[in-house]
Amino acid sequence: MSILKLNSSNGNVMAENKTLDAVKKCLRDFPLEARELYLNKTVPCVEPPFSPLEFYREWIGPNKPCVIRNAFSHWPALSKWNPSHLREVVGSKVISVAVTPNGYADAVNQDRFVMPEERLMTFSSLLDVVEGKVESRGVFYVQKQCSNLTEELPELTGDVEAHIPWMSEALVFFFSLGKLPDAVNFWLGEASAVTSMHKDHYENLYCVITGEKHFILLPPSDRPFIPYEHYQPAVYRQREDGDFDVVDVADSDKVPWIPLDPLKPDLELYPDYRLACPLHVTVKAGEMLYLPSLWFHHVRQSHGCIAVNFWYDMEYDIKYNYFQLVESLAGAVGPL
Amino acid sequence: MSILKLNSSNGNVMAENKTLDAVKKCLRDFPLEARELYLNKTVPCVEPPFSPLEFYREWIGPNKPCVIRNAFSHWPALSKWNPSHLREVVGSKVISVAVTPNGYADAVNQDRFVMPEERLMTFSSLLDVVEGKVESRGVFYVQKQCSNLTEELPELTGDVEAHIPWMSEALVFFFSLGKLPDAVNFWLGEASAVTSMHKDHYENLYCVITGEKHFILLPPSDRPFIPYEHYQPAVYRQREDGDFDVVDVADSDKVPWIPLDPLKPDLELYPDYRLACPLHVTVKAGEMLYLPSLWFHHVRQSHGCIAVNFWYDMEYDIKYNYFQLVESLAGAVGPL
Repeated sequence: MSILKLNSSNGNVMAENKTLDAVKKCLRDFPLEARELYLNKTVPCVEPPFSPLEFYREWIGPNKPCVIRNAFSHWPALSKWNPSHLREVVGSKVISVAVTPNGYADAVNQDRFVMPEERLMTFSSLLDVVEGKVESRGVFYVQKQCSNLTEELPELTGDVEAHIPWMSEALVFFFSLGKLPDAVNFWLGEASAVTSMHKDHYENLYCVITGEKHFILLPPSDRPFIPYEHYQPAVYRQREDGDFDVVDVADSDKVPWIPLDPLKPDLELYPDYRLACPLHVTVKAGEMLYLPSLWFHHVRQSHGCIAVNFWYDMEYDIKYNYFQLVESLAGAVGPL
Repeated sequence: MSILKLNSSNGNVMAENKTLDAVKKCLRDFPLEARELYLNKTVPCVEPPFSPLEFYREWIGPNKPCVIRNAFSHWPALSKWNPSHLREVVGSKVISVAVTPNGYADAVNQDRFVMPEERLMTFSSLLDVVEGKVESRGVFYVQKQCSNLTEELPELTGDVEAHIPWMSEALVFFFSLGKLPDAVNFWLGEASAVTSMHKDHYENLYCVITGEKHFILLPPSDRPFIPYEHYQPAVYRQREDGDFDVVDVADSDKVPWIPLDPLKPDLELYPDYRLACPLHVTVKAGEMLYLPSLWFHHVRQSHGCIAVNFWYDMEYDIKYNYFQLVESLAGAVGPL
């Protein structure tokens, strides 16, 4: 190799290094600019009345979360959904409950992505566990996201609304009468049940009926600071002696998931997360969180907290297109 | 340099090359995915009635252009704005006219960004030129974008509306009564007057009163395929003998502008533009174009075409944040 060639090759390397550094700088600056430009420093509270257009323009369009107070104070659920009433009305119904040894359903455990044991049990026997009337190993969480309120507990639907009228109208299409939610989910969890950080392709209205939920939220623009790895999927299975096995899902591709726990982030392993800007918000009984599509979220709750959430399909439009670019760039570039 | 070190350095170079290639692929795929995902292959026509929410959700929110028919059929301007009426009402008014040797105002000419001579003249003497009653060197275009309808020709404002009610309502903020346009501009041009490709930070409603306008539109997602260069700013100045000088603007920084002419793109110089997807749309008298913020556009017209456009401030929100990322990445990476 001649000196000339070596030098010229070194020149190219330096130019490419410089370009890659500039790309990384763009990806680092982008989330910071989002905060300066349009994101709020905390999650604001709003209160009806507002028109569907106002809600669309202020929150859905700009993809910004807010807490809505007094949005469902007329729901009978707020006064009726206590354990004795629920035992009376749906005590004998069989529901699907996520059971885990540690409260982490759908989360990274060592080198696996571990899903909960899905156990069918009566609502009464679940309440026995939650109320401490029956001792049980493991953490129980009603968290099935298949519209389980309407599918598994139709007796309770009269205590809430089938949809949120101003949201349905905000998302309605030309020539259609309205857009109803894709799913209405019922949540009932123990204090140690945790939802690990992830994002959904839904516009989410999350209504707390009793107790409170603690959300950690990160905007889609923080994607460059959030690590993803690929994991072998597995499920928990409780043995006769009460201990849990982790059983691999056979013939399954690895799945991408976020290994980072925002409650105790490993900043040595994921130093980019230092630049992330998690928002903490507690949603109390009677309050509703608008959790915009593609926002990363981590969720905890007070013991026995009951909630109902409405999932509306998101639009796969310009914002999704842009997010996909950020996602693919974050994947291509890796740590910043 | 040991062989080991050379190899390891070569390995790094290859990895960096690969990363940079992956970044370029992301930037190439992004505009193509935009077309598959949500952009229309042509500019659709819509017709009132529609609610402000519907217009926001279908067009402003997703940042998609459309032609609106019968949106201003009640404007007196449509029947009144002929040369003899205009001579009568505003013939003696002094207006600002852009004069160029070739029809290109605000465009790249060789190694300069050349702006027009801004000439003050009466409306009658402009009409003399446009109607061919007076011979004149140069191309004349009323194109001053400083709300010249309300500022220079207030006598004509009664023939149109001060704003577009459904647009103002769509963009209104909480607790305010409405958002009025930032500028209402009057356009009157000769056939050879051309607006070179650029983008604006406005939501634009462009209403053709007489004649027709030919737009070439490119979505913001095509930014990676659109070249920008930096140019010395200059202005045209017509000499006594009718020829034009190009006079540099003293002490001025270079300005970024698009050198590419979509009517005859130099694909050898700008091969990435092969992947761009220009939409052609003709807007006829009585029609309105919704030209969304940050869309690149190039404009021509029929001789003597008169138009009025409304510029509404764009929102500097999530979409702008994403666009700025694309803009900075395109600048960092250069040709794909």
